[in-house]
Amino acid sequence: MFTNLIHSIQQHIDLDEKEISILCNYIDSHQLKKKDFLLKEGDVCHDLFFVEKGCLRMYFIDERAVEQITQFAIDRWWMSDYFSFMDRTPSEYYIQAVEKSEILSISHTAFEEMLKELPKMERYLRISMQRALAASQLRIKYMYELTKEEFYIHFSTSFPEFMQRVPQYMIASYLGLTPEYVSELRKKHL
Amino acid sequence: MFTNLIHSIQQHIDLDEKEISILCNYIDSHQLKKKDFLLKEGDVCHDLFFVEKGCLRMYFIDERAVEQITQFAIDRWWMSDYFSFMDRTPSEYYIQAVEKSEILSISHTAFEEMLKELPKMERYLRISMQRALAASQLRIKYMYELTKEEFYIHFSTSFPEFMQRVPQYMIASYLGLTPEYVSELRKKHL
Repeated sequence: MFTNLIHSIQQHIDLDEKEISILCNYIDSHQLKKKDFLLKEGDVCHDLFFVEKGCLRMYFIDERAVEQITQFAIDRWWMSDYFSFMDRTPSEYYIQAVEKSEILSISHTAFEEMLKELPKMERYLRISMQRALAASQLRIKYMYELTKEEFYIHFSTSFPEFMQRVPQYMIASYLGLTPEYVSELRKKHL
Repeated sequence: MFTNLIHSIQQHIDLDEKEISILCNYIDSHQLKKKDFLLKEGDVCHDLFFVEKGCLRMYFIDERAVEQITQFAIDRWWMSDYFSFMDRTPSEYYIQAVEKSEILSISHTAFEEMLKELPKMERYLRISMQRALAASQLRIKYMYELTKEEFYIHFSTSFPEFMQRVPQYMIASYLGLTPEYVSELRKKHL
């Protein structure tokens, strides 16, 4: 049960059987079909989500009414609109399943109660947040540094599995490119 | 001593006098002059830095040998190259004082020892990392969403104090604009 989550936690802290069972009481599990939503614009993001298996995308609708993808999450990644989650403010994002997925969630209230009961989880979450922050810092550097073609090459060589799982038009949106240009790049770099 | 750091921590967790004194044993303090460096490209970023008072900038040198600023930190903000800090890899960044600053630091080794002795600090650090991650997530959204003029207006209205403290050419670098264009925008939106 929740194999990937427990494995992710036990890489950083020790949890015994009793603590795992306490933790699991705070976690909800969702079997999502492709295109099911976890969050829609205007709603408060009540949960932190963990991808036990599958793939999520996070996007907003821009001024031209176009979907702009800002993040993906695959197995063992956390995803949330963190400001909305922390400050209880309406989100500007959609979070949607890219494929059939098993998603775990912990609500804001359950999160705080769980941390009171299992304070050692703070360490696991601090390390997870720190690693996500490092990834975000590197991503911002790439946004300054790389041309769109370089970003495509970097992305497709760093995450080949991703390129197979995610439709080309979504990768184009994430990279800020047109689907036609991604198709050209794909041919060029095959 | 370390007034801003202690205040920042006590907003989230209770630390008694003895715990504060234990914490302070792990912290180093640096009085920096304007333009002093805390990190240079090619070095491992051994520390997490906290701005007790002052202002830091983080930048890299791009292919055209131009300084590209990716982050600022003012009073009560943490700054580090997180991947370099966590994985002990050489950094591609410089961290430099924009003005006379008092900077606190905790080394990688001291950080782990401090967390063993004061595990409750994990909570404070998790919350700090989570908030930095939220800010980074919003920043990436703006990088997709806003024109450079909109980004300037957003930045100058959200952080008016910043606009006063930081030279115009640094703000231009951070926003990905030429100093001339920032000067035009400043006149236009005064």
